[in-house]
Amino acid sequence: MRITDFNTGLFTDYYELTMAQGYFFQGRQNDYACFDYFFRSNPFQGGFTVFAGLDDLSAFLESFKYTKDDIQFLREYGFDDQFLAYLENLQLSLSIYSVREGDVVFANEPLVRVEGKIIELQLLETLLLNVLNFESLIATKARRIKMQAGDRPVIDFGLRRAQGLGGLQATRAAYIGGVDKTSNVFSSKAYAIPATGTIAHSWIQSYDDELTSFRDYARLFPENCVLLIDTYDTLNSGLPNAMIVAKELLRNGHQLFGVRLDSGDLAALSKEVRKILDEHDLGFVKIVASNQLDEYAMQKLNAQNAPIDSFGVGTSLVTGQDDPALDGVYKLSYADHHPRMKFSENPAKASLPGVKMVYRFVDENKKFIGDGICFNDYTPNRETTFYQVPLGKELIRYNQTGFEKLLFPFWINGVPQRAKKSLDSIREFSAQRLEQLPDQYKQLQQTPDYPVGIEHDIQKLQSKIVAEKKLNYQSKNIEL
Amino acid sequence: MRITDFNTGLFTDYYELTMAQGYFFQGRQNDYACFDYFFRSNPFQGGFTVFAGLDDLSAFLESFKYTKDDIQFLREYGFDDQFLAYLENLQLSLSIYSVREGDVVFANEPLVRVEGKIIELQLLETLLLNVLNFESLIATKARRIKMQAGDRPVIDFGLRRAQGLGGLQATRAAYIGGVDKTSNVFSSKAYAIPATGTIAHSWIQSYDDELTSFRDYARLFPENCVLLIDTYDTLNSGLPNAMIVAKELLRNGHQLFGVRLDSGDLAALSKEVRKILDEHDLGFVKIVASNQLDEYAMQKLNAQNAPIDSFGVGTSLVTGQDDPALDGVYKLSYADHHPRMKFSENPAKASLPGVKMVYRFVDENKKFIGDGICFNDYTPNRETTFYQVPLGKELIRYNQTGFEKLLFPFWINGVPQRAKKSLDSIREFSAQRLEQLPDQYKQLQQTPDYPVGIEHDIQKLQSKIVAEKKLNYQSKNIEL
Repeated sequence: MRITDFNTGLFTDYYELTMAQGYFFQGRQNDYACFDYFFRSNPFQGGFTVFAGLDDLSAFLESFKYTKDDIQFLREYGFDDQFLAYLENLQLSLSIYSVREGDVVFANEPLVRVEGKIIELQLLETLLLNVLNFESLIATKARRIKMQAGDRPVIDFGLRRAQGLGGLQATRAAYIGGVDKTSNVFSSKAYAIPATGTIAHSWIQSYDDELTSFRDYARLFPENCVLLIDTYDTLNSGLPNAMIVAKELLRNGHQLFGVRLDSGDLAALSKEVRKILDEHDLGFVKIVASNQLDEYAMQKLNAQNAPIDSFGVGTSLVTGQDDPALDGVYKLSYADHHPRMKFSENPAKASLPGVKMVYRFVDENKKFIGDGICFNDYTPNRETTFYQVPLGKELIRYNQTGFEKLLFPFWINGVPQRAKKSLDSIREFSAQRLEQLPDQYKQLQQTPDYPVGIEHDIQKLQSKIVAEKKLNYQSKNIEL
Repeated sequence: MRITDFNTGLFTDYYELTMAQGYFFQGRQNDYACFDYFFRSNPFQGGFTVFAGLDDLSAFLESFKYTKDDIQFLREYGFDDQFLAYLENLQLSLSIYSVREGDVVFANEPLVRVEGKIIELQLLETLLLNVLNFESLIATKARRIKMQAGDRPVIDFGLRRAQGLGGLQATRAAYIGGVDKTSNVFSSKAYAIPATGTIAHSWIQSYDDELTSFRDYARLFPENCVLLIDTYDTLNSGLPNAMIVAKELLRNGHQLFGVRLDSGDLAALSKEVRKILDEHDLGFVKIVASNQLDEYAMQKLNAQNAPIDSFGVGTSLVTGQDDPALDGVYKLSYADHHPRMKFSENPAKASLPGVKMVYRFVDENKKFIGDGICFNDYTPNRETTFYQVPLGKELIRYNQTGFEKLLFPFWINGVPQRAKKSLDSIREFSAQRLEQLPDQYKQLQQTPDYPVGIEHDIQKLQSKIVAEKKLNYQSKNIEL
């Protein structure tokens, strides 16, 4: 069972269906169109975003169909029989060009370009946004947390506090973002992610005394045994009992793997516990810490040199906590043989018209310099310059550096272009891309903006469309 | 297809399985035990919580099994064959006593009491917490938002920004909390929730001009047509074009249902739009507002008397945004013939030992006065008094008032005790319970604490267990 094994045709907003019926009745269902997926600001006030969710999206799209039951449901809402027959026979034929899953990306650049029949593109909007927004959010959070942990393992403990079934995807995204293991068994199986865990307070409470509960557990699981020492009193009960068991294990040729702290002042307790363990020749016993951890709490523990060997992170990792949604949008950029845009009251929210490609510029050490957006049929040359959006300052000169295309063919004419990647390969790619990101963008907050610019022709087209629209509605005499 | 149609045996944390194997090897798999589900503070700094998720939990538990494939997966992790055979044949036999879904509940009172074989109770911990924490969170958020809307409809627009598949449950929970309709078609079908929606910017952008896009749409959907007027310029383009279409519809015997504002200063724009519509005899055209709304934004709109007729709410509704997880926990209260508790460093986090019942006291107008917790086999009498936790101040006198039991038999010996309720009946019950809550607990923030007290015998037992444990570890000579 994968969580993606259900028909996703109804995983959409109602207005996508009314608009689809509208296109259908206008005879426009086969019109070529193009939409861009992008977001407007990095989550968590950070300097980058880890793009994730692509292979899950692909799996969901493979199940994008309408069952007879779905059709009947829509009929009861008054949808038209001809349109419903069209939906029932719909086979996706769209093409998707996308940034690779795990890549490090930035605000206001197209990350996914979807091309094809406007009706299909409209119907899948909600599903695409749901999956990419959420998994990218959590992969980014995971990377921020993992950066604080450095080489020390981070374990996802979040399923119990996750947002329902979203927790199953959160574990996948967290792994892409660098988390090492998970407590979530379902996702461990579904996505091949290493699972781990030992005991909870309930095991210990279920005994009359803590020492017996530790002894029984250590006897049953002498390998990788981590004893939770805060059920009654960390320093006066949990730790001494764990040390008794550690000594007993040693006599049987086993090493207690670790003790876990799950409450109190983790910096102070970890230092005290480390000192006592070391004084008793138990230097090999590791200290695992959990309890409301996030990247800021971990930064503080680091600042205090807390001798913690691994971290269990829950709520903040799987929900994003301080920023529980990525503001990704999906905007029409081409339809009915013309580039399209939305501008509204706020010029910063104007979308970029036309079918586009994104380039990334890298220096001689492979470090990222900036990204540039141009029309897909434009070939950058030595004169190409990219300008800041929306102010227009010059940002990147094409000829100063090497470059790479960021969008790759992912689906072409309804057909996925490759087998699913292993999650491990996506995770490694992501870590490698983070290496290429200069350090100034890796601070937790108040990072400078990574340069993302647009080529001059896009600027010109934007201005032209805005001027035409204004002329159009300013010249109109509204006669009511 | 319901989202609950998958095997949930692996929807658990890894340590639940190691502990389960531990109980199994100790021969304790049939030991009677009891766990309580409760949370420690109301979300959103509010004065109450709406309990939700119960019927979804029931459906998930009905699918709580281990397939051959799951067993093989666990075998590869080194779980024991005898234990795996036990899991493969496991049929839940537990009993659940629960607050009714939709009820208004408070911190530190048992909301769900699960009794039965300790191994089963341990295995389902993660699933229970995941479902109840999330759906209760969102039902509570929905109620806070709906209280600001009053009689005006609130529509869930959140699926695209929801936390993955969690969005499917969020819509259910939001409906319980008083939201009126949803854009989410999947959940509309799965849970019988009214769906609604009209057009997005993309429909309008796909045309050369806005007026034609409005005309085409209104011709195709003359009933319940809501035109989105901020694609290019709300007051100079969107509104005049919508008014032209409204007049044309009128001549054909239809009324334009509404216009939607999705950007800018919603208070100022709604006033201006209302004034212009009214001046042109279009007083029947409603104003729908959306864009980053939550209970606080709506409170501000109310304070400015913004003439908005209905609200589309997205991210904050389906994620909880400012507080994206309810801190619900599941604590062992009875095992191996003894009441059990955890206390640790922080006395406020001490759990309540023993098998318990919760009573709610109501005044002559059916308004809630306070809740009291006592042992399940204790019958309250005229002398019964409930004390504040953990400080001990007297909170509620039993004999001053009427009372009701809050926990109802939900599953008994593995068998659900009733058919699923209709979501509408849960939603109505929830609204009625909110009516019974005195107003001082309904403020958005800085509410007084609703009284939740414990009966004296529980206090005595808590003190006794703490004293015994302390004696136990203080008297011990740690010999290493």
